[in-house]
Amino acid sequence: GSAVTQDSSDSGSIVLSAFQQQKEVMLKNSYSDHFIGLNKYDTFIGEESVAAGERLELSDSPTWIIDPIDGTVNFVHRFPFVAISIAFAVNKQTEFGIVYSCVEDKLYCAQRGGGAFLNGEPLHASGQEDISRCLVVTEIGAERDDLALSTMTSNIFRLLKLPVHGVRALGTAAVDMCQVATGGADAYYHIGMHCWDIAASALIVQEAGGVVMDTDGSQFDMMSRKVIAASSSAVANRIAQVVQAFPCRRDDEDPSKSLCGAASN
Amino acid sequence: GSAVTQDSSDSGSIVLSAFQQQKEVMLKNSYSDHFIGLNKYDTFIGEESVAAGERLELSDSPTWIIDPIDGTVNFVHRFPFVAISIAFAVNKQTEFGIVYSCVEDKLYCAQRGGGAFLNGEPLHASGQEDISRCLVVTEIGAERDDLALSTMTSNIFRLLKLPVHGVRALGTAAVDMCQVATGGADAYYHIGMHCWDIAASALIVQEAGGVVMDTDGSQFDMMSRKVIAASSSAVANRIAQVVQAFPCRRDDEDPSKSLCGAASN
Repeated sequence: GSAVTQDSSDSGSIVLSAFQQQKEVMLKNSYSDHFIGLNKYDTFIGEESVAAGERLELSDSPTWIIDPIDGTVNFVHRFPFVAISIAFAVNKQTEFGIVYSCVEDKLYCAQRGGGAFLNGEPLHASGQEDISRCLVVTEIGAERDDLALSTMTSNIFRLLKLPVHGVRALGTAAVDMCQVATGGADAYYHIGMHCWDIAASALIVQEAGGVVMDTDGSQFDMMSRKVIAASSSAVANRIAQVVQAFPCRRDDEDPSKSLCGAASN
Repeated sequence: GSAVTQDSSDSGSIVLSAFQQQKEVMLKNSYSDHFIGLNKYDTFIGEESVAAGERLELSDSPTWIIDPIDGTVNFVHRFPFVAISIAFAVNKQTEFGIVYSCVEDKLYCAQRGGGAFLNGEPLHASGQEDISRCLVVTEIGAERDDLALSTMTSNIFRLLKLPVHGVRALGTAAVDMCQVATGGADAYYHIGMHCWDIAASALIVQEAGGVVMDTDGSQFDMMSRKVIAASSSAVANRIAQVVQAFPCRRDDEDPSKSLCGAASN
């Protein structure tokens, strides 16, 4: 609703102002205070919880899944793509999602069953079904160990061999994924991001007529840290055949175990 | 001067209008008519010349080096980064360069010795000298044969192992390279683009205090189809040590020979 939009816009101004003024400051932990209108009994999932060592669980309770700055590396460098991502889920189902790309001043939003919008204009995925005519977006840079890195680069190699038209990377999973909702890109895939990076944009893609699934071809699971968003099931399934995953600890696994080859972007 | 800015803006409106309306139309050959104020004795270099099978040569004559749509794949998909790139060289030296990112409405320009500007505001490269703190931009997608593709992906692997902070790809060489001029990225490298993709943005980076060189570490040569643009010589040289090139026919070689592993983006 409008109250939520207003909140997102205010937080957007704060992020944008910080983006323009402060290059080295990290503000990940200071934004939650600015969101208003939240029920004190609601659950919150975000990078702050992980930083505190808390074990995440997506329950049936009303849950806010929030990334106050998606694209932290971009933010630090002032590369002009950073976003605020807010999703609200009940019974593990996302009811609405908002992604605000602060520097571009683009507000993406979707309500379940109500369509997806960019600055008020309805969004439609491209509907493309031919993988060889697809523009594909992904993330590059969070991978550090050899297995994660070589899997990531060999995924790009195999996609370009299919061929696809090209690969793009803006540096924020939320905004990258919203490109599929606009029809400007036909697919997005990523291994290693977290639920707060993509919970909102997954609904935005679905409400724009696109599909989301796990990179192994199974049903989308926002806690699995693997996602494909695409213009059609045909394209999503083709990407699932090509893209390999590297080991990543699920967002809802015990944080004392360490399996993951990728940090958050 | 203002006449040139006006031309760029008019052409920008045309590109933007086409971007918004026509998804499948390719307009590469229809824009030159819209540039006015050019001397009929000037030389022109652009993708049109190559399409006509003409051998390119950068001579001492006053020469316009023009890409009416940099980011053709983006344009076709309506991925929101396409640019007009215009450079003017005399005695093989670029005197001014203009890059207009049409959808973003960002006009980058530089005059030799006069600084670089984005929508009238002076630009400054980051000055970063530590490769491990760099955000790096490149292009992904024009490579098709196995050697070009594997060289491109292994370059990304080696850079991330250094490590660098991340890799980004917007899909237009001209705009990608201008990110180095803004300080939002610290380096850009590419193998396989053409002189018209980067002639203007190379001057913009230099006038913003950055450096440009060949990927083999030698002096920048806009006809060599290999470029590094960076925040500092230290970063450019470090990237030159890591990045390998694949065979690419120079822009001024006989077009009847075929060596190149990459098409234009």
